[in-house]
Amino acid sequence: MGVAHFSASGSVSSDIMYSSTLLSKSSIKASLVFSLTNQVFQTHLPKSTNKTFHSSQPLLLKSGKVRAMETQEGVSSLDFHGIDQKLVDKMIYDALVWSSLHGLVVGDKSVQRSGKVPGVGMVHAPFALLPMPFPETHWKQACEVAPIFNELVDRVSLEAKFLQDSLSRTKKADAFTSRLLDIHSKMLEINKKEEIRLGLHRSDYMLDEQTKFLLQIEMNTISSSFAGLSSLVSDLHRSLLDNYGKLLNLDSKRVPGNTSVSQFANVLAKAWTEYNNPRSAVMVVVQADERNMYDQHWLSSVLKERHNITSIRKTLAEIDAEGELQADGSLIVDGQAISVIYFRAGYAPTDYPSESEWSARLLMEQSSAVKCPSISYHLVGTKKIQQELAKPNVLERFLDNKEDIAKLRKCFAGLWSLDDSDIVNKAIERPELFVMKPQREGGGNNIYGNDVREALKALQKEGTEEDAAYILMQRIFPSVFSTFLLRDGICHKDDAISELGIYGAYLRNKEKVIINEQCGYLMRTKISSSDEGGVAAGFAVLDSLYLT
Amino acid sequence: MGVAHFSASGSVSSDIMYSSTLLSKSSIKASLVFSLTNQVFQTHLPKSTNKTFHSSQPLLLKSGKVRAMETQEGVSSLDFHGIDQKLVDKMIYDALVWSSLHGLVVGDKSVQRSGKVPGVGMVHAPFALLPMPFPETHWKQACEVAPIFNELVDRVSLEAKFLQDSLSRTKKADAFTSRLLDIHSKMLEINKKEEIRLGLHRSDYMLDEQTKFLLQIEMNTISSSFAGLSSLVSDLHRSLLDNYGKLLNLDSKRVPGNTSVSQFANVLAKAWTEYNNPRSAVMVVVQADERNMYDQHWLSSVLKERHNITSIRKTLAEIDAEGELQADGSLIVDGQAISVIYFRAGYAPTDYPSESEWSARLLMEQSSAVKCPSISYHLVGTKKIQQELAKPNVLERFLDNKEDIAKLRKCFAGLWSLDDSDIVNKAIERPELFVMKPQREGGGNNIYGNDVREALKALQKEGTEEDAAYILMQRIFPSVFSTFLLRDGICHKDDAISELGIYGAYLRNKEKVIINEQCGYLMRTKISSSDEGGVAAGFAVLDSLYLT
Repeated sequence: MGVAHFSASGSVSSDIMYSSTLLSKSSIKASLVFSLTNQVFQTHLPKSTNKTFHSSQPLLLKSGKVRAMETQEGVSSLDFHGIDQKLVDKMIYDALVWSSLHGLVVGDKSVQRSGKVPGVGMVHAPFALLPMPFPETHWKQACEVAPIFNELVDRVSLEAKFLQDSLSRTKKADAFTSRLLDIHSKMLEINKKEEIRLGLHRSDYMLDEQTKFLLQIEMNTISSSFAGLSSLVSDLHRSLLDNYGKLLNLDSKRVPGNTSVSQFANVLAKAWTEYNNPRSAVMVVVQADERNMYDQHWLSSVLKERHNITSIRKTLAEIDAEGELQADGSLIVDGQAISVIYFRAGYAPTDYPSESEWSARLLMEQSSAVKCPSISYHLVGTKKIQQELAKPNVLERFLDNKEDIAKLRKCFAGLWSLDDSDIVNKAIERPELFVMKPQREGGGNNIYGNDVREALKALQKEGTEEDAAYILMQRIFPSVFSTFLLRDGICHKDDAISELGIYGAYLRNKEKVIINEQCGYLMRTKISSSDEGGVAAGFAVLDSLYLT
Repeated sequence: MGVAHFSASGSVSSDIMYSSTLLSKSSIKASLVFSLTNQVFQTHLPKSTNKTFHSSQPLLLKSGKVRAMETQEGVSSLDFHGIDQKLVDKMIYDALVWSSLHGLVVGDKSVQRSGKVPGVGMVHAPFALLPMPFPETHWKQACEVAPIFNELVDRVSLEAKFLQDSLSRTKKADAFTSRLLDIHSKMLEINKKEEIRLGLHRSDYMLDEQTKFLLQIEMNTISSSFAGLSSLVSDLHRSLLDNYGKLLNLDSKRVPGNTSVSQFANVLAKAWTEYNNPRSAVMVVVQADERNMYDQHWLSSVLKERHNITSIRKTLAEIDAEGELQADGSLIVDGQAISVIYFRAGYAPTDYPSESEWSARLLMEQSSAVKCPSISYHLVGTKKIQQELAKPNVLERFLDNKEDIAKLRKCFAGLWSLDDSDIVNKAIERPELFVMKPQREGGGNNIYGNDVREALKALQKEGTEEDAAYILMQRIFPSVFSTFLLRDGICHKDDAISELGIYGAYLRNKEKVIINEQCGYLMRTKISSSDEGGVAAGFAVLDSLYLT
């Protein structure tokens, strides 16, 4: 699930989906989850005919409004039900002030220039007022697998044939993946070596309520966003609990420290050092209009202040116009030597409106600059590869340690390609148990509910290769909590679900692994009453977690 | 000159004007200045018929625009004339980013809610791209006199009869001053004691170019604004010079550190401690609509984070509705005990739209809470008292140390009341040498140029007491520098003049002076091509200083 859930959409990252089938020995857990679905899902199926209001009335606040919103039945928890409204108002006000003073901001989409000019049209980033409860064991589990996933991405990226073969059917159905594969092929042809390999990933999870399994939603290997702002949300929640925790019986120490921005900056600095050109800069590849720019600016700011490394921001079109390769393979853009290329654009088809952008991508890939990510890292992040890796015995091709393999597999949700007719029929019968995911990136493209049935039937009728543009994924039903979501200065009380992202960084120079670590986290919370409600309504918020 | 020069107007403070006359022995310096005026002013008289453009063309920036603007002839310095435009663009971009990440923000007046709801409709505070050159000797002079002015305010505030007598004519002509005096009288009647006396002042100066005299414009004893944001501007300039100083041949260490916000918070905390009620809060008296709220929030934030002291924000109307005096004289507002009242409203007639607000002011004055300022401190800050204090032998009534007296007097510009017919005639003859200042607060009310002549003639004709609502002040002509002013993401290159504000804090409990110190500074820079151009166009910016 991409960050396009957020009004500050920013960067939506690619997926790796590690699929498992019902029949696989190696996915006993996943099939177990699936066999339990009748029970799990019945509790949570939306009953649109029977909605209730949890809060009795909207309340005018000094700082905005608490709006009572419609919620589903069957909600398991209402943690903040009993909080005194006056206390909530105070916390809302303090939180909005805190955001403004500490740079927890995004560009306001109602202000035209806010995606281009920094310092104008700013609004607080959408956030949850209080951190989301999350079991400490699952938190530790997610942290523990981060370095293993980092390693897996690197190993898979080295297997060019696996990538090309796995994506061969997708290539025919999805033009974007096809162009990425073309660049990948060209690099193979010229025998391009990537000695310094840099990954800044984010693996996203949901905690299935009934089974208590932590299941991976996707692995982002390009443009993993919100490392800058998520650190701030954790700080905000700690600050609020420092001031109000006693009244709420909450302890700020249960919000894990979140050093994602400093760790990411540190890794970028290390990559810069490995490249070893003191006059070089880090280039951030950006969209022309970017309302999540402050998330990116935080990273550049820390990079400058703590490591004295300059970063420049360029769109793909600018790189095409201003970039050139030197004879030694080094990249110069606008007269500036570039040692590290950090992509915060280039992950979605819309980022390539003309051949210029593809030309820029190719130019960068051909250069000796460290790419975060390289084309092969990018491809490892596709949904199809996620699904391939989840097949029986595939992980074993890339990883040696059996314990590591077991740990990863434990996180895999059910993932299937559409050439599995049993699963397709099952999904037509019970579409509410599945999510249909297109290769197309950008968030908001997933298919849910009855639309799954209609889409699958249409594909069956067509009988084309078009089905290769999709995968099916087991639908996960996380716990629902009553929470306060703040957007545009207005507080909404509603039932919500959360998705945990764990950042990971990997840096290798030839055979030497320099960094392989977990790097903080991102919690995102969205209203639970719609499938991709967060996307449609732009209503998901940044959050942190409260360990239970 | 009030902060209403700024689009983020915030709080405009009262004046103390220390006047001197041409005939006074004790104002040799001031008369010297005045006798030089022909020479001084001729250099700088606006030649509206002969304007030129300094920059040849407007330049589109990634982050906005550099606009060539009309400038006067006779500009003494063009420090930034030779800077490479690309470098300027980079600095502008970095500065805008820095402001956003570090809370150097105000409410955008084009967004309706931005003065009420924090976190929405934010825009960077207007600022100068680079610090203003300023002689180190004059900087030291301004810092040195701060504690003396603090002491003077306290001493004068104790002389109730002096205040009432000096303002007796003003009382008849100015309704606002009259209401303040009424409260003052009531406190005298009930023999109200103010044992803990707290002043957070700002003394504003301009450096007269020709004479090199640092002359006081006014002394603000209520609602001295920008202590929060001005610290940040100094940090911003230091950061820019750390990164670009070598290219500009500027050293960041020449920008004096500015700890105004932490010092003000520290003094408020000390006052809270003296009051000695651990359950009490600091109450910030605010306007209902306040786009300069973040300047105030910074102070409250530091007060909470470093001193663990809670502050609440209330309008005068809210205080009237929710406030009550206890039998022991203590103040409770909305159920909260208040130990320190910090006024960021209440300085202008518009802050009292009904009797409610006056009732609230009286209630607070009657309470035992520490008032910043008390009614007597507030009165000391009127222009009339400034003018009275500048008369011969008046300072001697309040201060003992002759050196201290000489230091203050050295800062006094020429100040006259309108019952001095010689001066009035002189001002009618040469209005360009004077500024006519009404008691009315709020900035933007000063009278310049030919309007001075017209206003004085009209007052002569009327022959009423109306003239007591004004004073005349020598017009000061500071050096003009070419500078870059940023507002709303757009950079304007223009000739500008600066005004230096020095913060001072004074805290006394009975006979014990707990704090008497200088507390950082505020530099404000505005386009020089109009008298109160900054006010009319809203175009003055926050700045810092570069010691030369």
